[in-house]
Amino acid sequence: MYNYKTECNNSLFSLFMEKQKLSTLFSPKSVAIVGASDKEGKVGTAITENVMKLGYEGKVFLVNPSYESLHGQKCYKSLIEIEDGVDVAVVVVPAKFVLDVVRQSADKVKNFVIISAGFSEIGKDGVQREGELALLAKQKGLNVLGPNCLGFINPKINLNASFAAGMPEKGNIAFVSQSGALLVAALDIAKKEGLKFSSLFSVGNKMQMSEIELMEELGNDKDTKIIGMYLEGINDGKAFIETASRVSQKKPIVILKAGKTEKSQKAISSHTGALSGSDEIMDAVFEKTGVIRANNLEDFFEMLEIISSSAAPQNEKVAVITNAGGAGVLATDAFKGRSVKLADFSDKVKGELGKNLPEEGSVENPIDVLGDAAEDRYAHALETIAKEDIGTTLCILTPQEKTPVGKIAEVIIDFKKKTDKVVAAAFIGGGLVEEAVSKMKEAGIPTFAFPERAVGILDQYYKWSQRKGSEKRLKGKEDCSERKGIVAGIINHAKEEGKKALRFDDAAKIMALYGINAIESHYFKQGEEVPEGMKYPVVAKIDSDRILHKTDQKALVLGIKNSQELSDALEDLWNRFPGEEILVQPMLSKGTELILGINRDEVFGSIVVAGLGGIYTEIFKMVDFFVPPMNHEDIVGKLSEGKTAFLFAGARGQEAFDADEVANVIGAIMEFAGEVPEAREFDINPMFIYNNGEKAVAVDVKIIF
Amino acid sequence: MYNYKTECNNSLFSLFMEKQKLSTLFSPKSVAIVGASDKEGKVGTAITENVMKLGYEGKVFLVNPSYESLHGQKCYKSLIEIEDGVDVAVVVVPAKFVLDVVRQSADKVKNFVIISAGFSEIGKDGVQREGELALLAKQKGLNVLGPNCLGFINPKINLNASFAAGMPEKGNIAFVSQSGALLVAALDIAKKEGLKFSSLFSVGNKMQMSEIELMEELGNDKDTKIIGMYLEGINDGKAFIETASRVSQKKPIVILKAGKTEKSQKAISSHTGALSGSDEIMDAVFEKTGVIRANNLEDFFEMLEIISSSAAPQNEKVAVITNAGGAGVLATDAFKGRSVKLADFSDKVKGELGKNLPEEGSVENPIDVLGDAAEDRYAHALETIAKEDIGTTLCILTPQEKTPVGKIAEVIIDFKKKTDKVVAAAFIGGGLVEEAVSKMKEAGIPTFAFPERAVGILDQYYKWSQRKGSEKRLKGKEDCSERKGIVAGIINHAKEEGKKALRFDDAAKIMALYGINAIESHYFKQGEEVPEGMKYPVVAKIDSDRILHKTDQKALVLGIKNSQELSDALEDLWNRFPGEEILVQPMLSKGTELILGINRDEVFGSIVVAGLGGIYTEIFKMVDFFVPPMNHEDIVGKLSEGKTAFLFAGARGQEAFDADEVANVIGAIMEFAGEVPEAREFDINPMFIYNNGEKAVAVDVKIIF
Repeated sequence: MYNYKTECNNSLFSLFMEKQKLSTLFSPKSVAIVGASDKEGKVGTAITENVMKLGYEGKVFLVNPSYESLHGQKCYKSLIEIEDGVDVAVVVVPAKFVLDVVRQSADKVKNFVIISAGFSEIGKDGVQREGELALLAKQKGLNVLGPNCLGFINPKINLNASFAAGMPEKGNIAFVSQSGALLVAALDIAKKEGLKFSSLFSVGNKMQMSEIELMEELGNDKDTKIIGMYLEGINDGKAFIETASRVSQKKPIVILKAGKTEKSQKAISSHTGALSGSDEIMDAVFEKTGVIRANNLEDFFEMLEIISSSAAPQNEKVAVITNAGGAGVLATDAFKGRSVKLADFSDKVKGELGKNLPEEGSVENPIDVLGDAAEDRYAHALETIAKEDIGTTLCILTPQEKTPVGKIAEVIIDFKKKTDKVVAAAFIGGGLVEEAVSKMKEAGIPTFAFPERAVGILDQYYKWSQRKGSEKRLKGKEDCSERKGIVAGIINHAKEEGKKALRFDDAAKIMALYGINAIESHYFKQGEEVPEGMKYPVVAKIDSDRILHKTDQKALVLGIKNSQELSDALEDLWNRFPGEEILVQPMLSKGTELILGINRDEVFGSIVVAGLGGIYTEIFKMVDFFVPPMNHEDIVGKLSEGKTAFLFAGARGQEAFDADEVANVIGAIMEFAGEVPEAREFDINPMFIYNNGEKAVAVDVKIIF
Repeated sequence: MYNYKTECNNSLFSLFMEKQKLSTLFSPKSVAIVGASDKEGKVGTAITENVMKLGYEGKVFLVNPSYESLHGQKCYKSLIEIEDGVDVAVVVVPAKFVLDVVRQSADKVKNFVIISAGFSEIGKDGVQREGELALLAKQKGLNVLGPNCLGFINPKINLNASFAAGMPEKGNIAFVSQSGALLVAALDIAKKEGLKFSSLFSVGNKMQMSEIELMEELGNDKDTKIIGMYLEGINDGKAFIETASRVSQKKPIVILKAGKTEKSQKAISSHTGALSGSDEIMDAVFEKTGVIRANNLEDFFEMLEIISSSAAPQNEKVAVITNAGGAGVLATDAFKGRSVKLADFSDKVKGELGKNLPEEGSVENPIDVLGDAAEDRYAHALETIAKEDIGTTLCILTPQEKTPVGKIAEVIIDFKKKTDKVVAAAFIGGGLVEEAVSKMKEAGIPTFAFPERAVGILDQYYKWSQRKGSEKRLKGKEDCSERKGIVAGIINHAKEEGKKALRFDDAAKIMALYGINAIESHYFKQGEEVPEGMKYPVVAKIDSDRILHKTDQKALVLGIKNSQELSDALEDLWNRFPGEEILVQPMLSKGTELILGINRDEVFGSIVVAGLGGIYTEIFKMVDFFVPPMNHEDIVGKLSEGKTAFLFAGARGQEAFDADEVANVIGAIMEFAGEVPEAREFDINPMFIYNNGEKAVAVDVKIIF
């Protein structure tokens, strides 16, 4: 089992130390604005007005050496001039003055929001400036949000310490944005869609306070039910995994991660590297940590809306009520391939439903209350299906000639008050449904413009509720130092010989230390005779770090049946690759080919990649990503739900393969990845696995350093 | 080559006969309403008011035996009482009176819109009633829209001959809906989204006038630029393919097809049946015919909007302008896996772009004009990139503190007037962008709430523009009657023997008639000795229609190396399957396995399914659907773009396989499918193909009747 390194625990420790202080920053009793102004169009003016005029009841101090007074109150020359305590200083002076401001007051003020741009985002000079600021903050024990950010908003205390206009409604959504512009757009969308916030943060350059610290803080914030984040990068992958896994047990985290497109691939000589783009790894990390990934901005806001207003569906069963058959069919289509399912109703409930419906209606799910339905048919259907064990009810409406849209909305709102199940609505239309939709939103009913979107978003919410809590905490396992020493010796020896990759026999020795079974091998030096007593058939191949793709370069002879054929093969290979040692191995009965390897991800560390091998590996991409830490049970679980699940379930006319055996190999590779960082690239390709009792065997192992 | 049957040509002929008349129905100079009323809440009243009060300038006749006058004008007892000609009669009387109304007046009135429900949708009695109506219509040469429909709307002549309220704006979208409720919802959404229509049709039960007739009619309607359809079923698959292929050459057809989820699979003994759900076939048909498939209601309306207002992108290159970096990254993400691409700008253009941008802006695509951008930066960027060969420009905006949203919208509108390229906008926000979005819509600029949606919809539009025109008309090929006769003889003989499937040798004979190479075979009757001179290795298997899955039932012995082993194998098989003949075939060097077969689709006829075989066929689903008619070139083209394209392109370390050879087999199966309808199920599984010059060979062929 893979275990975290010590720096990870350190960073956790420091988080806990700062926790108390962070809440002082975000719920301050006093705010100072350094760079306060009243000149039209200045950022300092916007912030000053936001802090002073939107109802914040704490003390506000204005700081600007150019003014004696501002906005009708005293203006200080500097922070240190202020006699009272200052919980947080919002700094909006030009970048070149920021360090001085902070340095001067660092003994008095411990929390800073640095709005000013001109730091690492502008290149070399800015990077240096930010470095100095970070060092100062560390030395003085400061909390810093930003620099190059919009600030933050805490609607509960009516504090808008940002230059985004307005005060959003108080609610339970915390929104963290790495883009200030999207935060502004979100505020505007929120107003239209009725989203309500516990807090909003623009994290800017994330010099010190990043998604990690904020997840931790917001995880403990009782006013926050859901944490929504827009992120362009993740600073510390391991801390992210640890923190997100823990916080998502308590409350849902929805992340819109920008930057899906692949970076241009570095030169990669192992296959597993080529199989995994950074986005697939991100998916695996989000899945592992229980984070809900929003695919786009639209999904993101809809996820926030539904989670903000509803508990997660208690089960996968959904009942749909519609006044249009067509819309019901479209909703039914949307369930294809989802975890949430259309519920089957009992005969009793169907009978009951029928009592208040004309014959043409449908008592099957979706319930069709017909185009002339008034509110009574919706009410009756809602109350009847409440008797079933349904997780979610979705009410679809089209505004037909006689449809009392508003009254139907009221019926749904009334029903919602009486139930702890999810009630959602998709009223399809424009002006005719607008008012009803607003009322339902106001009453905490998640609404969707189209039924298909409702089903998709409900599905994500339900999947999250199933996934969270499935993660087990792992005990760290001690490093096996003896094993590490042996491996290091082998690799160092090869390095001294100028090699870039291990010979197969050396790699096989290392595999044995990790309990991985590799194929037997016998090496022939140039000119060496074929000994008697060898078992045939065998395979002969060049084993050199200069020849990584043996098939392509015809450095491989298969199906050698006797000693004469072997002599011929050796001669042929030496003719073409003079001086190379030749590796001879038994030719195994062909098993199902797996490929297993390590992806050394820059952010998330070593990820194990495992899946179906063979010549079409890269076309089928039937591989999964195993993100440490995982115990054996986790790995088996992931195998049984992953891309190669069919192997372990048994397919038509085929015995199941042993998931435990493969999980052991994956677990061992995870240990190897952690213990042997000098192995830059690693893969087993192929590993043959059998479903007839034969033991899995690594046929080729590449360890590149 | 597959050729249409004669009834297909007949139906085409009858379409052309009716064309003139249909336009009389939809652009009538006079309308009679049978069942006109003025009682509140009656459908007849709604229609009467819609026809009379929304600006229609033709003559309106009201018919209702209960009134002398209605709405201030004479009310007739029946249609025949009316002295003037009646171009169309809208009938809203109860179902039981409809036949009488039509029968009485069928010599006077030729066009009917039957609003009344109570026909095939209510079951047995209704089916009979609808059958009588259809017969009457045929005998009297009538055109009938409906029954059980909402009617139709022709905004150009201000005629709303439906009971949906209001008059949509005149425009170029024709909307055909199989759901009346969705038509009503569409009208309401249209008002909000600024969609404008040439006509709207509710087709109801599609007794006579279906998507086929309307596609034909609307294809020739000069006021219609785009045909949008919501369909729950397709009546005549072959006519659909023929008509849609032809009409989509002239104008885009966007279809939202409801009913994606699978019908419960019938008992299927061939693999190809299990591989193809009806939805995959629908996809293949839409692709073949050049129809744009909308995945959901939201996509549907957005496709209508963009096509209505813009020409298709002239090339795949898209330029993006944004005032928020984050939104630019999200847009970039959305291009992943699309046909449309972010354009690369020339150095000259980048230099030019830089002249009007602060240093922090980006002159790479997406162009980041920064958060403080006023309209001048958008204008300069738009004009500069107009110098590049760009197909589409997408303008993204977030409403930041200083963003002049309205002025930027004006700049975009002005630019649109000067260019024939696609200009689209995604203004992300709520109230702050609402007015600007409306103005842009009004000016014919497609707008999207989120940049990711813009990219997705643009991509579909671009793909359509590339696909249309790629279809070639085929000459029909004469049936090969001689071959048909031989095949019928073989099958009849087997039927007489009580068989349900052909023996391999018979199937191989048929394959030979179609130029398909099947493996040699030799049969052994129980007790028969193994002759000398056989070539080994061989395979022995039971060949019986009682044993369709040979591997599962261990009715197969592989790798028989000499006559002794063969004798043993025969004895073993006869012990377990007494009396069965045993088929012995050479054991071939294993090629890449394909599976090929026929899916007899209820709607679209015989579709050839072809793809990768082997034990994981059903897991990988690497199969494509070949919808006749196709010529050799079409088939090769589809193979080279389909799921198994990698075989024919050559993969790493692997020679390419011969697409021509596989296309010949597919073409031959298409002919077989057309000529031998008695073959209820058919598949070749596996066919071995080789990339070393060896000829492809069918190893097993199943013909079930």
